[in-house]
Amino acid sequence: MKNIKRTIYNILDKSEQNGLAEKIFDIMIISLIILNVVAVICEPSIKDPNALAFLKILEIVSVIIFTIEYLLRIWVADLSMPQKNKWKARFLFILTPMAIIDLLAILPFYIPFIIPVDLRVLRMLRVFRLLRIFKANRYTSALTTVFRVIKNKAEQLISSLFVVIVLMIIASVLMFNIENYAQPEKFVSVFDAMWWSVATLTTVGYGDIYPITLAGKLLAAIIAILGIGIVAIPTGIIASGFTELVHQKNEQNTRICPHCGKEID
Amino acid sequence: MKNIKRTIYNILDKSEQNGLAEKIFDIMIISLIILNVVAVICEPSIKDPNALAFLKILEIVSVIIFTIEYLLRIWVADLSMPQKNKWKARFLFILTPMAIIDLLAILPFYIPFIIPVDLRVLRMLRVFRLLRIFKANRYTSALTTVFRVIKNKAEQLISSLFVVIVLMIIASVLMFNIENYAQPEKFVSVFDAMWWSVATLTTVGYGDIYPITLAGKLLAAIIAILGIGIVAIPTGIIASGFTELVHQKNEQNTRICPHCGKEID
Amino acid sequence: MKNIKRTIYNILDKSEQNGLAEKIFDIMIISLIILNVVAVICEPSIKDPNALAFLKILEIVSVIIFTIEYLLRIWVADLSMPQKNKWKARFLFILTPMAIIDLLAILPFYIPFIIPVDLRVLRMLRVFRLLRIFKANRYTSALTTVFRVIKNKAEQLISSLFVVIVLMIIASVLMFNIENYAQPEKFVSVFDAMWWSVATLTTVGYGDIYPITLAGKLLAAIIAILGIGIVAIPTGIIASGFTELVHQKNEQNTRICPHCGKEID
Amino acid sequence: MKNIKRTIYNILDKSEQNGLAEKIFDIMIISLIILNVVAVICEPSIKDPNALAFLKILEIVSVIIFTIEYLLRIWVADLSMPQKNKWKARFLFILTPMAIIDLLAILPFYIPFIIPVDLRVLRMLRVFRLLRIFKANRYTSALTTVFRVIKNKAEQLISSLFVVIVLMIIASVLMFNIENYAQPEKFVSVFDAMWWSVATLTTVGYGDIYPITLAGKLLAAIIAILGIGIVAIPTGIIASGFTELVHQKNEQNTRICPHCGKEID
Repeated sequence: MKNIKRTIYNILDKSEQNGLAEKIFDIMIISLIILNVVAVICEPSIKDPNALAFLKILEIVSVIIFTIEYLLRIWVADLSMPQKNKWKARFLFILTPMAIIDLLAILPFYIPFIIPVDLRVLRMLRVFRLLRIFKANRYTSALTTVFRVIKNKAEQLISSLFVVIVLMIIASVLMFNIENYAQPEKFVSVFDAMWWSVATLTTVGYGDIYPITLAGKLLAAIIAILGIGIVAIPTGIIASGFTELVHQKNEQNTRICPHCGKEID
Repeated sequence: MKNIKRTIYNILDKSEQNGLAEKIFDIMIISLIILNVVAVICEPSIKDPNALAFLKILEIVSVIIFTIEYLLRIWVADLSMPQKNKWKARFLFILTPMAIIDLLAILPFYIPFIIPVDLRVLRMLRVFRLLRIFKANRYTSALTTVFRVIKNKAEQLISSLFVVIVLMIIASVLMFNIENYAQPEKFVSVFDAMWWSVATLTTVGYGDIYPITLAGKLLAAIIAILGIGIVAIPTGIIASGFTELVHQKNEQNTRICPHCGKEID
Repeated sequence: MKNIKRTIYNILDKSEQNGLAEKIFDIMIISLIILNVVAVICEPSIKDPNALAFLKILEIVSVIIFTIEYLLRIWVADLSMPQKNKWKARFLFILTPMAIIDLLAILPFYIPFIIPVDLRVLRMLRVFRLLRIFKANRYTSALTTVFRVIKNKAEQLISSLFVVIVLMIIASVLMFNIENYAQPEKFVSVFDAMWWSVATLTTVGYGDIYPITLAGKLLAAIIAILGIGIVAIPTGIIASGFTELVHQKNEQNTRICPHCGKEID
Repeated sequence: MKNIKRTIYNILDKSEQNGLAEKIFDIMIISLIILNVVAVICEPSIKDPNALAFLKILEIVSVIIFTIEYLLRIWVADLSMPQKNKWKARFLFILTPMAIIDLLAILPFYIPFIIPVDLRVLRMLRVFRLLRIFKANRYTSALTTVFRVIKNKAEQLISSLFVVIVLMIIASVLMFNIENYAQPEKFVSVFDAMWWSVATLTTVGYGDIYPITLAGKLLAAIIAILGIGIVAIPTGIIASGFTELVHQKNEQNTRICPHCGKEID
């Protein structure tokens, strides 16, 4: 029993050396995820009852496989945290983001059996299965670098986002009060002005809502120019994050003696 | 009396160690600010007279609290500048940006009692209260870093903005003269062309106004490509600002001996 | 014969010192490419039968020259890889990206003689000849630097693109399910939602499709703000790539003795 | 005479220490430029004949002042290049970009006296006078830094622009061939497709022209995603340019001994 558990753990967990069984398992799961995502994307465009029946079967099979995988992962979770209590380890595993995504991917299938709810909303959640692709790539160094930079700079990025949101609210309230008289059918509430301010600050600019008064255009010009800063600040933060990381790596790898020009080890 | 003043100063000022009273006061003030901002956002969408009456009461209570806070801040301002004259310190405090925001947040309430003016425009200013949230966060290191980089690079950023404005005016005058014949109802004055140039240089592109002639499209293409530079220059400035700051910190923190690889203190 | 081959090789290949014959050949080929591209651009707007006849002649002459050049390049390919077998070297040359572009540029002319197909689609491919301009510029150091940075960071850039695509699919499926009820004529399938998500994440925002429901607008706001990150991450990667390259060059070029301040060679 | 010439040179030239006369002259000229630009902007919106007469007088006075200034600058040009021949120095001065701008600013006024031409087109050029503002700011260090970075990286930026243009042409030809059947009234010629590609690659996205076919949308998606790179590459180049400049300055200013931690002078 213990041996089987250890084998399952080795197959499921990607932190150790990849064996053949593990690789086959990985490719199978990722193929199934991609198949599921393709199904979610294409389903609304499919009218043919046979194809729909096939998609139904695909869903049932997928959910069964994903459920078994999820339960097995909980079962073997204690092996990854040997110093912890068996049940505590499992409980901690359930709370990890990846385990929550796994649960979100299978839950929509089971809920209607318990509570009668709108299926559509729940089935939509199946797309989050796609996030599991990152798990398979978890140890691809390039992606890890990108995520590490974002994580290192998370505090600064969130702070900037906070400034953006404050700016957005102020711009929205001002714009609503300016444009509400001129375009009462477009700027109905402050929320419409907020929709405008998001489109402007992010420089998306759909063109469904924009000021027509002089004061409104002046405010929009200021916000649009500030919008450049909204792009510039996170870009600057991330750029410096990458430069920093490269710097750290260089410092770890090589240190050159200033006397002789050779590396010091 | 002196003791009470010192206690009030400690509660209001955030530069010293946070005590419990200070934290409670902070949370209360921020909650009140957020409540006020929510009120400003939602008010135009509310039709129910009871809810409107509640908002009126909320405003009166808020203004009273903010007024007392503002007056107390002026009273204790001399404690933050002990080397200065009592009244001079208070006067200097009134002129700080944060004190002006505080005044702007309460003034709209009192003005109609003195001069009969359009309420709308003034009440709109209440949204600036939101800026006070930054005060509460004043010592969050991440936000401080972001602001410090912007401040360090302010001169370069303003210079770039100056170039952008010059470019914008030139583009607008040229575009107006090109498009005025083809679209006299869209490009009525140079100001319309300016509205176009802001939307193009910032890459927002609402699509309400754009050239239709060949010459106009050619100019727009050049301006749009220059618009990339408009994004690239401030981004580059800010990125180098962050890299520089990290560099400075590293230099301050650690200096490694090239002989032995150990830190020099 | 061997001498002629060597001469042809020297003229065609740009890795060695430029002689006069080589320069003349280069300018001729590039002029012909530009002429061809101008022809491809202008052809649909030309109605005059004489001009069309001239374009036809231009095409035939160009294809003959490009075909001869392509065959000569294959013939002399073994000289660039002297250690390899003659035919293997030629086969390897055919598989290089530049040789494939050259083939794509002449193939559309010959195919209709073999298989009867839609000419339009094939002739469109002639525009890829333009890519050959990069070949002429292959040793311009500035362009090489830009390409080297992109190549150095290719792994990270592709990883980011992968994250963007996953994000795009999730956003599209969610948006389709949200907006399909409100705008069934706009959000017909998930592919329409994908078109929306590309326009939003890249901040292009044509304005032909956008959410109108509250939930949809909320999702669009989140996606638009994430779209800033989509710009910030590759920019940060590329910026750090350039900084790194400059750093490496500096380290190679000069090493300064910390004792005397002179360069160490 | 020589003394007067030297005095005029000192007033006009900004490379030496600013005297009072120089400052007054500067402020006067800049005020006149700004007044002229305001006139160019407002003129088309003015109907009042008195105001128009005033603008006419303003123009005549300005042109006279600018003409005198231009001629004086040519006269004293030899003082800035004492080692050169008098007339050669003057000729070289006329060819400097700033002298050409000065000429462009006054020429439109004189041309109609010589050749009868469309006034509008020429008077439009008066807006280039605005560029002279940079001259007044020539020694503001922040702006100089920004321009120096752009100049340092000009080669790389132009190379990138070259790649963008090649990409744009390819995208346009492909898009025209794809969309011409579906929207013959929008994609009339390849030039319309080029207008689309500029709007997409720069992420402006006016929304006046966009693909509606599946193949067209796919191509647009690829181009829009490449458009991010179009922003990322110049941003990265400029960001590294700023970082480099800061680095160079640091190296010049301080060199720290790794033994004792003190500065080496």
